[in-house]
Amino acid sequence: MPEHVPPAAQAEGAFGWLDARRAERERAGLVRTLRPRQATSSLLDLASNDYLGLARHPEVTAAAAAAAEHWGAGSTGSRLVTGTTALHGELETELAAFCGFEAALVFSSGYAANLAAVTALSSRESLIVSDADNHASLIDGCRLSRAHTLVAPHADPAAVRKLLDQAPGRYASALAVTDALFSVDGDAAPLPDLAAACREHGAGLLIDDAHGLGVLGARGRGAAHTAGLAGAPDVVATVTLSKSLGSQGGAVLGPARVIEHLVNAARTFIFDTGLNPAATGAALAALRLLRREPERAERVRAVAGALYRGLSDAGLAAVRPDAAVVSVRAPSPAQALAWAARCRAAGLVVGCFRPPSVPDGISRLRLTARADLTDEQVATAVAAIAATA
Amino acid sequence: MPEHVPPAAQAEGAFGWLDARRAERERAGLVRTLRPRQATSSLLDLASNDYLGLARHPEVTAAAAAAAEHWGAGSTGSRLVTGTTALHGELETELAAFCGFEAALVFSSGYAANLAAVTALSSRESLIVSDADNHASLIDGCRLSRAHTLVAPHADPAAVRKLLDQAPGRYASALAVTDALFSVDGDAAPLPDLAAACREHGAGLLIDDAHGLGVLGARGRGAAHTAGLAGAPDVVATVTLSKSLGSQGGAVLGPARVIEHLVNAARTFIFDTGLNPAATGAALAALRLLRREPERAERVRAVAGALYRGLSDAGLAAVRPDAAVVSVRAPSPAQALAWAARCRAAGLVVGCFRPPSVPDGISRLRLTARADLTDEQVATAVAAIAATA
Ligand SMILES: Cc1ncc(COP(=O)(O)O)c(C=O)c1O
Ligand SMILES: Cc1ncc(COP(=O)(O)O)c(C=O)c1O
Repeated sequence: MPEHVPPAAQAEGAFGWLDARRAERERAGLVRTLRPRQATSSLLDLASNDYLGLARHPEVTAAAAAAAEHWGAGSTGSRLVTGTTALHGELETELAAFCGFEAALVFSSGYAANLAAVTALSSRESLIVSDADNHASLIDGCRLSRAHTLVAPHADPAAVRKLLDQAPGRYASALAVTDALFSVDGDAAPLPDLAAACREHGAGLLIDDAHGLGVLGARGRGAAHTAGLAGAPDVVATVTLSKSLGSQGGAVLGPARVIEHLVNAARTFIFDTGLNPAATGAALAALRLLRREPERAERVRAVAGALYRGLSDAGLAAVRPDAAVVSVRAPSPAQALAWAARCRAAGLVVGCFRPPSVPDGISRLRLTARADLTDEQVATAVAAIAATA
Repeated sequence: MPEHVPPAAQAEGAFGWLDARRAERERAGLVRTLRPRQATSSLLDLASNDYLGLARHPEVTAAAAAAAEHWGAGSTGSRLVTGTTALHGELETELAAFCGFEAALVFSSGYAANLAAVTALSSRESLIVSDADNHASLIDGCRLSRAHTLVAPHADPAAVRKLLDQAPGRYASALAVTDALFSVDGDAAPLPDLAAACREHGAGLLIDDAHGLGVLGARGRGAAHTAGLAGAPDVVATVTLSKSLGSQGGAVLGPARVIEHLVNAARTFIFDTGLNPAATGAALAALRLLRREPERAERVRAVAGALYRGLSDAGLAAVRPDAAVVSVRAPSPAQALAWAARCRAAGLVVGCFRPPSVPDGISRLRLTARADLTDEQVATAVAAIAATA
């Protein structure tokens, strides 16, 4: 430390205010701690987003390994410098075709893809109408966009229509932004009605299909495709490669002119290192597997349905799933946490969502269905959750 | 498409405004296109950020492959749910120790780490003083933070001191934010003077050490360590795993109370899928390699110095490198692009930075040194760049 730097006593103060935040968290029962896991476990996993059971599939892990060996451990640069390999191009082509869009662009995460899509498809002169329960990455995208953002009540196309009424004449462009399936309760957005509202107003529609890809539709092509919106000139979708595809990364899907615009204008594309080859190769292998075994999409929905029926029959406040997520309300953050701990003691890993990760302040257990769960495992899970409630 | 949706003619309009943006880019000579690369190339790479030549190192790629096989292709969830493996914990422990900090937290990218650090270490009641040439991810962090942000002239500690004068009494906390090495020109921030200015005002200092890790200091421990600031209670550093460590991902390094706060409050930590195992394992292997072969850090600096001397001797406007990046100014965006194309024709891949990726509007070739470049390769590169200028 150079001599003119004041002593450390003063330094202690700079982040001292964090201690008050810590005390608040402790009082509210909202302390989060990391719990590193091992590669294998005797616990039954009902918490991961590995909906199709592909993260550990030998074809997918072999593709990850082969891509690392062939292409290197990292992409070595921004996508616009050295970070675009032919593998990225392959994934983009096949992903766009599978989901029914003209073009696709791969990012290092779904979070980055959402920041890119929202910010690049709006400007200071734009209006954005954003669902109240949207994912944090969409909300951050709205904040970064500097557009005029109006928050619409959850899953309410009439409200969106009314908010968009302000757009013509007053804003240079308008965009409605929604999760296709909301991450906490797993409920679906009313996409056809939202698309109609947008089209009446010349507004674009941005659909975050993170939880729809691989789960919705006969072949798992996602919510946008299922709603007949894929490939439309006024619709853009984002997906993550980290859930159904068992890997990491994200993508924006849309008309070619949108993708070309993103390449030139999206900060989380231009100023971020390209997705690593292992993740790129794994996502591509998972996508090919899904094309070959479309029944995985059907199976994950059947598992979610069975979980829901079992829990409801046991008298629990489960939300009917529109895709793979089954959410069960808990009376308080502390009780949700205690319940999740009892589930773990009973051999089950479940998600526990508490403020600020829930839009409505209601804590819940969040269960995720997986295509590779057996009927016996589902029955075991239901029994354990009900017994510990 | 449901029947009540208006016809596609109307839909064309929603993203029609992008065509005007495209025309502007074309007029300004600022169109960017992706150029997928193959795994091997006869071209000499002076554009990637693989400073230590580790992205293709057999130990590093083998670690990536082994991690994918052992842990799976993806981490399967948010770090707080199922996305923290023991491998993440190992990397965090070893990275913190290597860089001299109490604790570390790994993110899916350096971009995400920066968004997390800036937003979680400030609030609406905070003052942030941010260097004018900071990386896009730090700027986005400032925007997302909602803190009062003042932009300080580039690398000017006296200006930072003056801006921080406003803090005591008026703001609940203050934070100065700076790249340790600026990504475009590769010049170093005056860290000791910045730290002194911060400490006089009880402000925290956030250092983005993306280009310092693996390059600066006798053992490559980075700029914060070299400046004697690592481990200080009022200093936080961020790093990326995608440059010297040849992988993907990012990390925040700092006092344990800062890291604990991030786990509880940073949106790009809580709402993002954990880094994939292959990238995590690769970064860990690269870190261990660097510990074993610290001469790589020295070598990359020597290569950068040799590049600079050769180019300066040839009469080119090169900037003296403080680390691995050597920047050479070009008269215009179009001429920079044409120069880079001539370099490629001569067997050399170089970076070409044009607006809006340059803070001052000046286009340049951006060359990156690598520890595994031979003296002959450096001489070849200098000759090719000079011959095509
Ligand atoms: C709806 C939604 N969008 C985006 C994301 C972000 O994707 P990623 O984890 O790949 O960054 C997630 C989950 O993480 C999500 O649930
Ligand atoms: C200074 C600086 N900070 C942060 C980043 C972002 O890191 P990453 O590419 O890992 O997201 C980069 C480069 O990409 C950078 O140059």
